[in-house]
Amino acid sequence: MYVDTLILNIQVYNSYFKTFMPGNVAVQDGRFFYIGNRGTETFEAGEIIEGAGRHMIPGLVDIHLHIESTMVTPETFSYGLIQNGVTTIVPEPHEMANVFGITGVKEMIRASQDCVVDMFYAIPSSVPATAMETTGGAIELEDIDELLRTENISCLGEIMNYVDVIADPDCKTNRILEHIRKHYPNLVIEGHVPKLLDLDLHRIIFAGVDSDHTHQTVEGMKARIAAGMFLEIQEKSMTDDVMNYLITNDVSEHFCFVTDDVMTDSLFKRGHLNNLVKKAIKMGMEPERAIYASSFTPARRMRMHDRGAIAPGKIADFVLLSDLREFAIAQVYKNGRKVYDAAEAYEQVVKPNQFPAHFYESVKLAPLAETDFDVNIDAADGTYLCRVMMVKDGSTFTDEHHGEARVQDGKLCWQESEFGLITVMDRYGINGNKGYGLIGGDTIKRGAVATTYSHDNHNLLVIGHNPHDMMVAANEVIRNQGGFCAVEDGNVLAFLHLPVGGILTEEPLEKTAREVEALRRAMESLGYKHYNPIMSISTHSLPVSPALKITDLGLIDVNKGKVVSLFV
Amino acid sequence: MYVDTLILNIQVYNSYFKTFMPGNVAVQDGRFFYIGNRGTETFEAGEIIEGAGRHMIPGLVDIHLHIESTMVTPETFSYGLIQNGVTTIVPEPHEMANVFGITGVKEMIRASQDCVVDMFYAIPSSVPATAMETTGGAIELEDIDELLRTENISCLGEIMNYVDVIADPDCKTNRILEHIRKHYPNLVIEGHVPKLLDLDLHRIIFAGVDSDHTHQTVEGMKARIAAGMFLEIQEKSMTDDVMNYLITNDVSEHFCFVTDDVMTDSLFKRGHLNNLVKKAIKMGMEPERAIYASSFTPARRMRMHDRGAIAPGKIADFVLLSDLREFAIAQVYKNGRKVYDAAEAYEQVVKPNQFPAHFYESVKLAPLAETDFDVNIDAADGTYLCRVMMVKDGSTFTDEHHGEARVQDGKLCWQESEFGLITVMDRYGINGNKGYGLIGGDTIKRGAVATTYSHDNHNLLVIGHNPHDMMVAANEVIRNQGGFCAVEDGNVLAFLHLPVGGILTEEPLEKTAREVEALRRAMESLGYKHYNPIMSISTHSLPVSPALKITDLGLIDVNKGKVVSLFV
Repeated sequence: MYVDTLILNIQVYNSYFKTFMPGNVAVQDGRFFYIGNRGTETFEAGEIIEGAGRHMIPGLVDIHLHIESTMVTPETFSYGLIQNGVTTIVPEPHEMANVFGITGVKEMIRASQDCVVDMFYAIPSSVPATAMETTGGAIELEDIDELLRTENISCLGEIMNYVDVIADPDCKTNRILEHIRKHYPNLVIEGHVPKLLDLDLHRIIFAGVDSDHTHQTVEGMKARIAAGMFLEIQEKSMTDDVMNYLITNDVSEHFCFVTDDVMTDSLFKRGHLNNLVKKAIKMGMEPERAIYASSFTPARRMRMHDRGAIAPGKIADFVLLSDLREFAIAQVYKNGRKVYDAAEAYEQVVKPNQFPAHFYESVKLAPLAETDFDVNIDAADGTYLCRVMMVKDGSTFTDEHHGEARVQDGKLCWQESEFGLITVMDRYGINGNKGYGLIGGDTIKRGAVATTYSHDNHNLLVIGHNPHDMMVAANEVIRNQGGFCAVEDGNVLAFLHLPVGGILTEEPLEKTAREVEALRRAMESLGYKHYNPIMSISTHSLPVSPALKITDLGLIDVNKGKVVSLFV
Repeated sequence: MYVDTLILNIQVYNSYFKTFMPGNVAVQDGRFFYIGNRGTETFEAGEIIEGAGRHMIPGLVDIHLHIESTMVTPETFSYGLIQNGVTTIVPEPHEMANVFGITGVKEMIRASQDCVVDMFYAIPSSVPATAMETTGGAIELEDIDELLRTENISCLGEIMNYVDVIADPDCKTNRILEHIRKHYPNLVIEGHVPKLLDLDLHRIIFAGVDSDHTHQTVEGMKARIAAGMFLEIQEKSMTDDVMNYLITNDVSEHFCFVTDDVMTDSLFKRGHLNNLVKKAIKMGMEPERAIYASSFTPARRMRMHDRGAIAPGKIADFVLLSDLREFAIAQVYKNGRKVYDAAEAYEQVVKPNQFPAHFYESVKLAPLAETDFDVNIDAADGTYLCRVMMVKDGSTFTDEHHGEARVQDGKLCWQESEFGLITVMDRYGINGNKGYGLIGGDTIKRGAVATTYSHDNHNLLVIGHNPHDMMVAANEVIRNQGGFCAVEDGNVLAFLHLPVGGILTEEPLEKTAREVEALRRAMESLGYKHYNPIMSISTHSLPVSPALKITDLGLIDVNKGKVVSLFV
């Protein structure tokens, strides 16, 4: 009988026995048709692939990530994934939702439709995450209903404000959860529930949230698995303790690997979910178990019963490895067709203007003047104790520090203090809000950085040590309708252009990766000390990430969940 | 905080670690809320249950069975299940579909709605199974679509004509499968694929059929699991070999226990799915694994993510065991409320007239005369070699035997032969078809038995050794609009009244169980030698069960799939 493709003499991964079995694989109409000993005596094949010496595994499935973290379009992201063996993802586009509301989500879905990688979206459940910031968009209950009527939805995305869910029965998120439980009882609901244990953990699961992708501990994992939660292990959770637990216990059914946030240069240079598989193998996990956790269990978690295994009827997404333990990818196939070959050129076709025109005109701010960085204070001349946001290397959390600054003629003399200025300005043209604060610690020591890539709402965020550099950096970003700019002595050191909603670029992956690296180096040259200065600065405005943050409404005491004044 | 129920100091089954853990369980709004060490210091409970010395397990889930095999209504069946700890089932009502078409399915669903046990239906996929019989109803593609729009559907029921699926791309079942794959790609499709291996097995899975509940072998199980099939182990599959394989291999995720067909008296006396659990434990399976296979994996197979485990948010269906290894049931709870207590009276409330009026008027035959058992033959006088259906104890298969009988004056002199007469008559008033054949082997040696409970289409089936007894038995069944009657010397020895569609009774379980026993004894007193004479005789007309069977169209050579003549 005729089949489209026949792969001969290969070690085939069997997800059901979690082992490799030698044999042949026949593919028909983009799906696996037969796996076994029959070969050319039974099948006449359109294409025959000699598999000797290779291992064949299912395409990798990543069920929790944000494309916007890589600052590229779905198209570029797909290009980046394929060479890393990832063939299906579940992106959660809450950044685009914060900028454009439901339109942002819909346009991401639309922009994904022709991608090689299959993308099934998570509906952002927590947009905005708080009311302490001016937002470009929100996702309401009716938006969720509307999105659930489309075909490319796989789940309700991470419930971030778990504190409200537990403490406030009437909060918006509880209303959403109640609605989902009632009308879509089978919908997967994803969670972001760091540190929860015992009663609080059971409460959040009772509310319908039954996964967690935050930083894990052994105690937390035991409690989560026992209560029916599914664990999504990201790189920061891959500590020795956690991996040892996952390796030595019979818990393969209860976890998978996910990437969550991957920077552009990391995707280009280090890879993607395959990196976590490699790391797991290096840390002692059998390749068979690491593969299970990056194909079968994530697909099952998202109820994608048509993939995640090499078995009759499943979609023929597969990877041929030239070395199993090194996880060296030789070829990648999607729907039975070769989409990547390590031995051949792999070039990106760039598609400009994938989004509606107004997506490129989202920074609604007039050019700034140096005076926009004056901090006007209704206070008598004198020295005041101020709240200062202290940046710490190795963390996206900040500390609240109290330091002195002088007020003269109704203005804060921030330039003469030992601190820099940080400001966030409404960039949606809604209310012209501007929030100001002081910043210190492991941040820049001179010059300025401005960006519209500032979580969660991507208003214009500027830090700096003099008004001129701050103005130059901010205006470069405004003039270009979004991006990330580092300036010193009035000169642009680096500029990363992010014209789509002020947060994404349509440039090729390699070019963007180089620009991201250049930007990071520029920020480091200004004195930034952080393993990831871009992530660090872009979370200064994240009002759900402790301790002192800033939005266009002013300084935020995250632990208290409220706006606080500059003066203590 | 307030909870409805608090169960203290109990051994709680944890499905995720497949083990018992000591603790307390709080139930809220019919769902499990909390499992852990917290007790009355945290919870104020509407009801407190002291659990010391007991084991708490999820309500059992049976995902493959036919209520009609027990010849009772869903209401009575539910009553019978609850005392056996079964709280959720997936019935496949193809018998009612053969009698009434889609109306039969819909009325079974309706009759299930107020039952204590949750019933999620499998849509009969193979009604009629063949064209070699007059049928009361059929399930067409549009019926499947209509049923899928209702809420109580869990899957497409067992694909029985797997031979056609493999051999004939254009057969009705392939059209149904194609339609389901296209329009309902996530629908579970259940299979009945005995003995299939290698290419044929992979073909049927490729077609979308990925479970099997037929008799298993170790070789078959290995092949099925490796190809992504889920195994539904019924009692006849619980051989030493099969159980040894399931016990000693890491295959817990890939199988569950199911009952398929349980006779009325067996349900009443021996129990239900709990019996298979008991048997598995006796055969050496750890109770924790046997419980897993009768609660967690069946629920997951049917994508019932709201049950099958004692965990926060899951429906609070549970069983309290007074003895784990004996699987002794003390109490049963459904949605958090007690529905059975072994220490209390358990009485059935009988509801008559649960079905539409025409369901009680489905036997459209006028009273028969003795001459209706004349076999008129257009052949010259003489002795002829005839096909004879030979009944075998221990099987529902028959053998084809060739024996002599004389023809005189255009009539078969069957009474003087060493065989009995078997006849099937259209009872739907469609065409008046009558099929005749000879029967021998382990069947009755005198008198007659008549029934409308004759698979698959439940036409009137009569066997006997003289026309008078046959007439009396048949007329008793016709006059009562369905049932099972054994007659000797003109006297009714036993009559089981089945007035709903000619196949179900609305009488209480206990009464029906007694009547079924009496009927079986009566058939045995007529010489029937079979572990289950009722099942044996009711499959004489099943044209998909080898080798020689009979319908109103005549004798059927099942292996050849065609009607054959009485004379060889």
